[in-house]
Amino acid sequence: MKRKIRMGMVGGGPGAFIGNVHRMASRLDGKIELTCGAFSNSLAKCKSMAEGLFLPEEKCYASYEEMFDKERKLPLGERMDFVAITTPNFMHFKIAMAALEKGFHVVCEKPMTFSLDEAIALRKKVQESGLLFVLMHNYSAYPMILQMEKMLADGKIGRIRKVIAEYDLGWLAAPNAGKQATWRITPEKSGIAACVSDIGTHAAHLIEFTTGLKIKELAADLSTFVEGRVLDDDATILLRFDNGARGLIEVSEVACGEENRFNFRVYGSEGCLEWNQQEPENLVYKTNDAAMKVLRRGWAELDSSVDKYTRLPAGHPEGFLEAFANIYSDFADAVVAKLENRVYESSFPTVEDGVREMNFIKKVVESSNKNAAWMALEKI
Amino acid sequence: MKRKIRMGMVGGGPGAFIGNVHRMASRLDGKIELTCGAFSNSLAKCKSMAEGLFLPEEKCYASYEEMFDKERKLPLGERMDFVAITTPNFMHFKIAMAALEKGFHVVCEKPMTFSLDEAIALRKKVQESGLLFVLMHNYSAYPMILQMEKMLADGKIGRIRKVIAEYDLGWLAAPNAGKQATWRITPEKSGIAACVSDIGTHAAHLIEFTTGLKIKELAADLSTFVEGRVLDDDATILLRFDNGARGLIEVSEVACGEENRFNFRVYGSEGCLEWNQQEPENLVYKTNDAAMKVLRRGWAELDSSVDKYTRLPAGHPEGFLEAFANIYSDFADAVVAKLENRVYESSFPTVEDGVREMNFIKKVVESSNKNAAWMALEKI
Amino acid sequence: MKRKIRMGMVGGGPGAFIGNVHRMASRLDGKIELTCGAFSNSLAKCKSMAEGLFLPEEKCYASYEEMFDKERKLPLGERMDFVAITTPNFMHFKIAMAALEKGFHVVCEKPMTFSLDEAIALRKKVQESGLLFVLMHNYSAYPMILQMEKMLADGKIGRIRKVIAEYDLGWLAAPNAGKQATWRITPEKSGIAACVSDIGTHAAHLIEFTTGLKIKELAADLSTFVEGRVLDDDATILLRFDNGARGLIEVSEVACGEENRFNFRVYGSEGCLEWNQQEPENLVYKTNDAAMKVLRRGWAELDSSVDKYTRLPAGHPEGFLEAFANIYSDFADAVVAKLENRVYESSFPTVEDGVREMNFIKKVVESSNKNAAWMALEKI
Amino acid sequence: MKRKIRMGMVGGGPGAFIGNVHRMASRLDGKIELTCGAFSNSLAKCKSMAEGLFLPEEKCYASYEEMFDKERKLPLGERMDFVAITTPNFMHFKIAMAALEKGFHVVCEKPMTFSLDEAIALRKKVQESGLLFVLMHNYSAYPMILQMEKMLADGKIGRIRKVIAEYDLGWLAAPNAGKQATWRITPEKSGIAACVSDIGTHAAHLIEFTTGLKIKELAADLSTFVEGRVLDDDATILLRFDNGARGLIEVSEVACGEENRFNFRVYGSEGCLEWNQQEPENLVYKTNDAAMKVLRRGWAELDSSVDKYTRLPAGHPEGFLEAFANIYSDFADAVVAKLENRVYESSFPTVEDGVREMNFIKKVVESSNKNAAWMALEKI
Repeated sequence: MKRKIRMGMVGGGPGAFIGNVHRMASRLDGKIELTCGAFSNSLAKCKSMAEGLFLPEEKCYASYEEMFDKERKLPLGERMDFVAITTPNFMHFKIAMAALEKGFHVVCEKPMTFSLDEAIALRKKVQESGLLFVLMHNYSAYPMILQMEKMLADGKIGRIRKVIAEYDLGWLAAPNAGKQATWRITPEKSGIAACVSDIGTHAAHLIEFTTGLKIKELAADLSTFVEGRVLDDDATILLRFDNGARGLIEVSEVACGEENRFNFRVYGSEGCLEWNQQEPENLVYKTNDAAMKVLRRGWAELDSSVDKYTRLPAGHPEGFLEAFANIYSDFADAVVAKLENRVYESSFPTVEDGVREMNFIKKVVESSNKNAAWMALEKI
Repeated sequence: MKRKIRMGMVGGGPGAFIGNVHRMASRLDGKIELTCGAFSNSLAKCKSMAEGLFLPEEKCYASYEEMFDKERKLPLGERMDFVAITTPNFMHFKIAMAALEKGFHVVCEKPMTFSLDEAIALRKKVQESGLLFVLMHNYSAYPMILQMEKMLADGKIGRIRKVIAEYDLGWLAAPNAGKQATWRITPEKSGIAACVSDIGTHAAHLIEFTTGLKIKELAADLSTFVEGRVLDDDATILLRFDNGARGLIEVSEVACGEENRFNFRVYGSEGCLEWNQQEPENLVYKTNDAAMKVLRRGWAELDSSVDKYTRLPAGHPEGFLEAFANIYSDFADAVVAKLENRVYESSFPTVEDGVREMNFIKKVVESSNKNAAWMALEKI
Repeated sequence: MKRKIRMGMVGGGPGAFIGNVHRMASRLDGKIELTCGAFSNSLAKCKSMAEGLFLPEEKCYASYEEMFDKERKLPLGERMDFVAITTPNFMHFKIAMAALEKGFHVVCEKPMTFSLDEAIALRKKVQESGLLFVLMHNYSAYPMILQMEKMLADGKIGRIRKVIAEYDLGWLAAPNAGKQATWRITPEKSGIAACVSDIGTHAAHLIEFTTGLKIKELAADLSTFVEGRVLDDDATILLRFDNGARGLIEVSEVACGEENRFNFRVYGSEGCLEWNQQEPENLVYKTNDAAMKVLRRGWAELDSSVDKYTRLPAGHPEGFLEAFANIYSDFADAVVAKLENRVYESSFPTVEDGVREMNFIKKVVESSNKNAAWMALEKI
Repeated sequence: MKRKIRMGMVGGGPGAFIGNVHRMASRLDGKIELTCGAFSNSLAKCKSMAEGLFLPEEKCYASYEEMFDKERKLPLGERMDFVAITTPNFMHFKIAMAALEKGFHVVCEKPMTFSLDEAIALRKKVQESGLLFVLMHNYSAYPMILQMEKMLADGKIGRIRKVIAEYDLGWLAAPNAGKQATWRITPEKSGIAACVSDIGTHAAHLIEFTTGLKIKELAADLSTFVEGRVLDDDATILLRFDNGARGLIEVSEVACGEENRFNFRVYGSEGCLEWNQQEPENLVYKTNDAAMKVLRRGWAELDSSVDKYTRLPAGHPEGFLEAFANIYSDFADAVVAKLENRVYESSFPTVEDGVREMNFIKKVVESSNKNAAWMALEKI
């Protein structure tokens, strides 16, 4: 490959949080360059963003439709190779379908779509297209999560018995939580759930990703603590897994005082593993009969598969952006492989995970509406 | 008062864990002396224990009945003032009833009795007797828990929305977990629950003690992970409180690798408070708009009511025994007040808490038997 | 042995910090009882203290001389077996000499004496008397320090290269630091040093105790930050050891904001060990080629010699008083052995350590007076 | 500005650690693009590096001289704007002098030069040239360090009394520590010091940067623990400051088991501030009379000047690369301002800091050679 992979972006206009994260993360490893964008519904805002990004004026598009149309006509190497979709989730489906239709690979923010039906349709489209589709569950790309996944697969804690994922933030503790929050708590934009959709899906994905188990049944108790809201801002969800293990997802966006407390632990018959997103360089490994170990990113004896997802020696902290960049880096490698007709095995989230997460949201809401009745999370 | 309070003990024979804890804790502040005991069903073991404790031979009794009978005949100042009951819980009721019958105050290990019915009968007896009865929920006597209780009562985190108590141990992760464990997992000795009874009650008590809220409804999912066991060794319990708050109790004794991880946090409309039993000197206080604070035991600005429950300056760690001793110290003051006909207000657990905990156990098991159906925890 | 060991106390009157610590620690394990005291120069204060301790009036003595005289005339089993000296250090020598003269074993607070000359004379007296003498360097009795000592002796970190002990408190940050502080900064009562004497000696002792190395040379830079003081309130001391290792003692009592931050780490050719007094249950063990380990008190695989110095299972925090009590417990065992004509090997600080610490203080002050010139710490 | 700033690089060939760090950090914010390089003495290696970076063949230069010559002939906007010097330090001077001679701004790795004389000459050149020169002391660009600097300047801990910087790594604990290590312990390449030069300079710089104090005198004890080495691999340095404060630098590269433990704390008359590089999102703020505070990156009430040096909300960890990128981002803004003839005030390290650090190295070695005699660190 003689050039960087070319990225277009939909969303991520002025003031957007996650759009800028995608841009920083995609830059970090020097494999990808942002070459065009439809950053905003407002052309003025879109242009202002493009200018700040040093994009030529003609690469700033008024709409994603225009972007896809014009870019597809450019020769390979001049046109964008893939699109990053960073809009609110109610728009993901249309944009992703259009991108695939026009032959572009897709990086899509989570939750994947607005509804389960959309997710199923999108999966069909991805399968038919033969194109690459990555769902941005960035937490699954932290090096110590990858290490955790390996250790669990290798039976380092024996048979898994219990899984606990807690994800608490305080940002929606007050009624007026700012622009970033508004669409997330509006049913027309967020869908049938808010907190469960925004962070519950991260928890559910991380659980299934690291343990390899599938949630078989769930019972959910959703709450709305802030007056005037119609969607959930807090949830507790009991889980049962296909291997007989039990689990728990506790999520809240009204956990006043918490920044981004995402704690995750797995107990097995022989030991446990624990990871905290706010101290992501550590993986705590405990058993009943040996000293507690703290495995650290960069340590020589981590599984060799983790090496490519770490950039610095131990003790030089990597964080959120670096994990995010791992997905971009892996995706770029996958795109190159595709261009070169090579097989490439990625370990990151797919459209299948997206279908699963939309089903998760649906069943959580149904369960809560039935006063936390158990719902099966069948394969779809 | 010109003398120490005189304690008798039932249980706490050779090899017992909690009996020795009671002895150490009761010694610490020099207010109490152990003067007699019925430490074991085996008189030989009882005598060996008494000898190690430098008790005169005649103060080692073959049974609690004999102890109560003989001690009551001694004049005040020579007889024991109270009994500490440190046997497995299936024996608590009979012993406590007998002690009260004979006019002795009682310190009783938790869970209070074998069944709710026993608890109700015991409460009646305590009320009729006018004697003192303390239920040993030692975690409620950590200084930073007392501080937490004060701050919650003072509205430092606003209106309480969510309460999370997690208590995980690994000691029963394997089938054969030693003598201390055996009675706890045997229905004839432990009752209808094991893990819920042993540590779930600590969690439930701590929640109600610190928040002042009452659990109104619960839905419980109990598990038995180790083959051959008949009682629960793990549980997750959803909670709803009388003020509309939600909560969660997660407890496990098969959490392989955990020592005594009892984590407790409370979220309100204005902030949160968090305490971890393994780092008991800290109380973490967070809000959305100020720097995170770590309140430390011994710090000058703690609530003045906490002062009497701390012995050392900040930075000189106090721990489990010191918290345990706080209940004994407070109890000794109450006994002295009683002897001197003074009113004394104690803040520690009572027979009422015991009734409540036995009802909690009952409803948790009923809920789990109905596949985690919601059960009301009515006032009894 | 059919009875508890009988303790007399000199010092520890109303308001004293360390006297009460000695009383609590000596009670904890039920091997020792306080039977008499000369708690204060004021007989009224002494009596008030005795009353609070439930001592009979005749066991409250107006002076230590009177106490020693009268107690020695009592038969064994009625007289005190040993004296705990908890006065300011300028009084230690006279009291200890008198106690030994009258045939009592001694537990003595640190620093041992007022001057090196006194220390040498006291050592001679101890040796001649054949009596027991323990110097109260309580930090050396934390279980994880004992574990550290074992691991260093066993070569777990290879050849020791560097030793760092930092002990920082904020309590003397302001000019007026209260009664407890006054004597410590007064030359007539504290001696030639204050901060170095009060906590520098703890650091020096812990270093030599755990590593088995001897400080060979030192260069010290003492400071007095608070105006009006004549003695040091802060010091940094470079160390060289007999095996070629280097080291560092950094101590301050004007480290505003610190509670009792005593951090200690040792680096060797193969790894390091680190311990922090404020989290005393952990011993961190790191090497370059394996995961970081956190050894915890109560963990099954600690050296078996540590077992007798721990009372609770892992995860049930022990602290400062428990470590302090370890020295009392060990001392009580030594006294019993003496009474029974058995040999008993104690590992805790002796009069020899006291001579060494007084020489340390002397050389530190001399070095600082010569602008941090190197001084040999020869064997005395 | 309609384009990104154009960077050339000297050094940073295959396998180099810090060169790649510079590339990643310079990419992160999208203000800078790497457009050319003389990455290695070996043209083959240089070309291989350039290819991996998607640079056109003609932008890969055989030597820095060639690069400077050819680039200077290109028009502005096509030529490089600045050079990043990431070679071993014995080459810095020649390269930097040549770059300035040819009119390029410079980003230079630390330590700035091989000797103090070179540093003085380089300073003269920078001053004459009117060009920008940044010395890469990346630790000074962590957001919480910038916050610390502000709080110290604002007197939040009162008058500074004591400063402690400890920087310990284990990477040179064994004789053969790999290629990255070799030049650092070779006098011909590293200069008169190794450990002091590599990390002692970071400590000295961070101290002066955050406190605003100047080191007035120092006394240093250097060690070489690994046999066969000629330069220091460990050092302890006593400091005295111009305001009367005292300090301590402890650095080691044979601290076996440590990753990149750079701990920094400052004590004042009213409180203290502490920062640890391995947990860089926290700044611990303690006083004697208020609860301990942990200020966190991203928290709303940090000094507003810090805002531009943070990219993510609190709880989304930023790390080493983000701090490194802060210097690049600030430097890019300075270059743009220069191009647009605007005044721009940067807070990051300059050639003046480089002169100071080379004098520091010189005096440390002189002191150690005189057995830790005090040396004045006069202004040069």
